[in-house]
Amino acid sequence: MFNNIVANKLKYFFNFKDVYRKYSPISAVFEKVNVGEVAEVKGWVKNLRVQKELVFADVSDGSCAKKLQIVIPKNLKPDSLTYGSSVHITGKLTKSPRGQLELVADNVNVLGSCVVLDGYPFNPRTTHPPDYTRQYLHLRSRTNYISAILRVRSSLTKHISDYFAANNYLNIHTPILTSNDCEGAGEVFKVQPENEETIKAMMQEGRDKDTVYFGTKTFLTVSGQLHLEAICRSMGNVYTLGPTFRAENSRSRLHLSEFYMLEAEVAFCHTLEQLQAVIEGLLQYVFIQTWNSNEADLILIDKGNKPPSWLEQKFVTLTYDEAKIVLQKKGMTVIDDINKEQELMLVEYCKAPVFVTRWPKDMKSFYMKECVDDNTKVDALDLLTPITGEVVGGSLREDNYERLKSKLPSERLNWYLDLRKFGNIPTGGFGLGLERLLQVLCGVSNIKDTLPFPRWPHNCDM
Amino acid sequence: MFNNIVANKLKYFFNFKDVYRKYSPISAVFEKVNVGEVAEVKGWVKNLRVQKELVFADVSDGSCAKKLQIVIPKNLKPDSLTYGSSVHITGKLTKSPRGQLELVADNVNVLGSCVVLDGYPFNPRTTHPPDYTRQYLHLRSRTNYISAILRVRSSLTKHISDYFAANNYLNIHTPILTSNDCEGAGEVFKVQPENEETIKAMMQEGRDKDTVYFGTKTFLTVSGQLHLEAICRSMGNVYTLGPTFRAENSRSRLHLSEFYMLEAEVAFCHTLEQLQAVIEGLLQYVFIQTWNSNEADLILIDKGNKPPSWLEQKFVTLTYDEAKIVLQKKGMTVIDDINKEQELMLVEYCKAPVFVTRWPKDMKSFYMKECVDDNTKVDALDLLTPITGEVVGGSLREDNYERLKSKLPSERLNWYLDLRKFGNIPTGGFGLGLERLLQVLCGVSNIKDTLPFPRWPHNCDM
Repeated sequence: MFNNIVANKLKYFFNFKDVYRKYSPISAVFEKVNVGEVAEVKGWVKNLRVQKELVFADVSDGSCAKKLQIVIPKNLKPDSLTYGSSVHITGKLTKSPRGQLELVADNVNVLGSCVVLDGYPFNPRTTHPPDYTRQYLHLRSRTNYISAILRVRSSLTKHISDYFAANNYLNIHTPILTSNDCEGAGEVFKVQPENEETIKAMMQEGRDKDTVYFGTKTFLTVSGQLHLEAICRSMGNVYTLGPTFRAENSRSRLHLSEFYMLEAEVAFCHTLEQLQAVIEGLLQYVFIQTWNSNEADLILIDKGNKPPSWLEQKFVTLTYDEAKIVLQKKGMTVIDDINKEQELMLVEYCKAPVFVTRWPKDMKSFYMKECVDDNTKVDALDLLTPITGEVVGGSLREDNYERLKSKLPSERLNWYLDLRKFGNIPTGGFGLGLERLLQVLCGVSNIKDTLPFPRWPHNCDM
Repeated sequence: MFNNIVANKLKYFFNFKDVYRKYSPISAVFEKVNVGEVAEVKGWVKNLRVQKELVFADVSDGSCAKKLQIVIPKNLKPDSLTYGSSVHITGKLTKSPRGQLELVADNVNVLGSCVVLDGYPFNPRTTHPPDYTRQYLHLRSRTNYISAILRVRSSLTKHISDYFAANNYLNIHTPILTSNDCEGAGEVFKVQPENEETIKAMMQEGRDKDTVYFGTKTFLTVSGQLHLEAICRSMGNVYTLGPTFRAENSRSRLHLSEFYMLEAEVAFCHTLEQLQAVIEGLLQYVFIQTWNSNEADLILIDKGNKPPSWLEQKFVTLTYDEAKIVLQKKGMTVIDDINKEQELMLVEYCKAPVFVTRWPKDMKSFYMKECVDDNTKVDALDLLTPITGEVVGGSLREDNYERLKSKLPSERLNWYLDLRKFGNIPTGGFGLGLERLLQVLCGVSNIKDTLPFPRWPHNCDM
């Protein structure tokens, strides 16, 4: 019986789109509609050229990088048809003398006018610099540059979830609110109720505004890793993709106060090589798929974009000590951490993304596993790429109960220690900054242009 | 050239899984491995029966609802093989006398022991009540009940993104941090940096701790709708699925302080019927797909579960006034809003999910569009289902610039008004509580069991 329901309903579902949407996305017009057929589109006028008897309008609806050229007999042109207006157009598809698909309109309806002189910040045939459009976050997805990046971001997100689904990873929604603050080392946001009435009603002895609601001081997460590890130790491979926060006072082209992080935890992971294979496979898969699905967008963002040559080769691996030697040869001195300039130098030197492995223990986090053959080092990795330098950080996790206990930074993490006590398994995992990956994929130098509504110091206006 | 890269690399990618994972997920053993073949699995012992010459262990690895029965000759049983321990087993697949697939072990390796008497909160062959397991959030995904729900949640998330991708919706990551607080009407969390050094370094005249970092008071989002509307007015259909927050002092079985909300905004949406078709299509699609992908989990969660009868019929629509009449007939008086008991009564009466439409204007939000034929009502809808009552809320959006301006609750929302000024289009949208949908889908009465790490008043312990 259930199979019947499925068959009937899926048929219903796929016919169904036509019930509520009589018009076609412009992407579908380019893909599926033939010359001579009628078409109905809705979108925004991106350019308008008025000639003697005809008006040419380039219309975009956000569904793809391409604009559809509309040919409008002058007597059909409404006065309010201007750059920036929204339109509903019916007509018939033809080929232009140059062989380009175009729609000859038989009806043009302006849905919403756009008076540029009334404060609209954009102009036709103009490339507005990112610093300028960033002042108009609510309107900037109307520019070619930002809309193309947002389409790439949407596709990339889909390809990431497809990669993990195909590899039997569960998608786990780790929490944003947490009482752990250890990894952030103070650079965290704290959270409390805004409403004084709520605070008054919930107040108890020994509490203050910071603890009244949850009973503990509560922060915005800096990583879902520890929570993922709990689920990994009962359900195997897991990942999460969601917002993460840093209260740093940084306005650099690589930092945001709120950003998306992809984190995965690999069950039964004994070596760093296993973890590297997952990361390398992921990056190569999503780059290839996104070039397949969004080539026109990637070229619209930067016409010099092309699939990187390293899609055809393995990533390079250098130990931290080897990386130091390479940098010394280049005249650079490493003082503890490898800085941004040095990261980019290593990538240039290797002509491929570079895993830096086997880091000094005292430079890394308490949960990282010591190397079997050298207890001054940990089995951690950074993955360095062009444009951003570090885009992934990961490690094997300390799985020895006593050793982890001796390094635990806070009693609040006893639950994390508990995970090693009962049916423990070896795991490793990584975190990848989604916005930085988008910078690398699209060739975008400022991270603030890789997401719709960036937040950074002094900027949270809407 | 690019196509060559794609072909080579995808081949590489799909071979690749075997490079880093030599063992099989138990789900794959049940699906793909035949009697007589060797198999290698890793997981946790859920049950152990010791007989004269053989030991039987039920092993689960989280990949599916089913456990694989392992048959272990007594001489191969390590002492540390107990309930709760993690194991690595190789052997050959056979059929038991009852026709059940089982693995006859030739090697059993215990990876992590589990001494129940050393504080492990669970016992074999015991169903632990949800109120009890909720005290051990870090371990409770080891119970059948919670692990099955988390698998359903992961699949449901995938089906939702597939539905929207198939219908040309862009996935937009709306921000968590926002300076808008209007919709939350005070029940919001506010955010500030924890670090006193950061606060000191960033302090300026006229600022306080609430405004020092962003320059404005900043809150955790209660809805991504207004931001989605901005993108919808340049790129068409959009959706977002992510965390949302309420600082309410509520400990009910239907409320969380942090929960996932699915929100979609439909471009060129003129009628509530169009919006209802999207919502109904979504719910029917994800229910059918999840029953297809996770039937065993749904039955494990509640053995009375079955696909609801309303998958074969259209949802019911009642106007608010009609709903009041129905409830009056049942002896219930509606004072303004329809309460939870009344919601559930309407669903029972209609024997299907119920859209309640055409709500009194003064009960709903400023951005909702007035009904064309009655300016005391708005084109808003609630969707009511069994178990939870309201699971979706939505509306057409006010698209008249002057009317919206007169209702705007704050000057901080002038950007939102601006969206109607330049190339405006009619849109409608909705928000769906993911956890409530999971309650309906799984038959789970307490919302705190539908996500891995629930947060509610006095509960944010890890």
